[in-house]
Amino acid sequence: MTSHSATYTVTGMTCAHCVASVTEEVSAIDGVTDVAVDLAAGSVVITSGRELSTTEVTTAITEAGYQLAR
Amino acid sequence: MTSHSATYTVTGMTCAHCVASVTEEVSAIDGVTDVAVDLAAGSVVITSGRELSTTEVTTAITEAGYQLAR
Repeated sequence: MTSHSATYTVTGMTCAHCVASVTEEVSAIDGVTDVAVDLAAGSVVITSGRELSTTEVTTAITEAGYQLAR
Repeated sequence: MTSHSATYTVTGMTCAHCVASVTEEVSAIDGVTDVAVDLAAGSVVITSGRELSTTEVTTAITEAGYQLAR
């Protein structure tokens, strides 16, 4: 299986609860195998078995209550 | 029933999840009838049917993962 990895910047995360919310929503995307959030940097590294669309990632982040940085 | 109300200052709350955690823990104290958290001010107004000890409140705040300001 080819593994894809992409790094996104998410704004609005302020605490460990925020990290948990983002991790939970992004992990629920089909094909995602790992989610690593760096709270201080606001970065989210997503590893998946297929290439994810920006729309899928945006939707998950938004549902968690945060925003992808533009 | 006599109603008691006391305001505490809690440090470390940064987002709505923090507010929910504090509200949940403080609400679980026996006799507490209302908990109102102001995130921006860091204040927690606790209304209860009996007088609460500082120890009870401190324990709840600590269990939620935050600290009472001294």
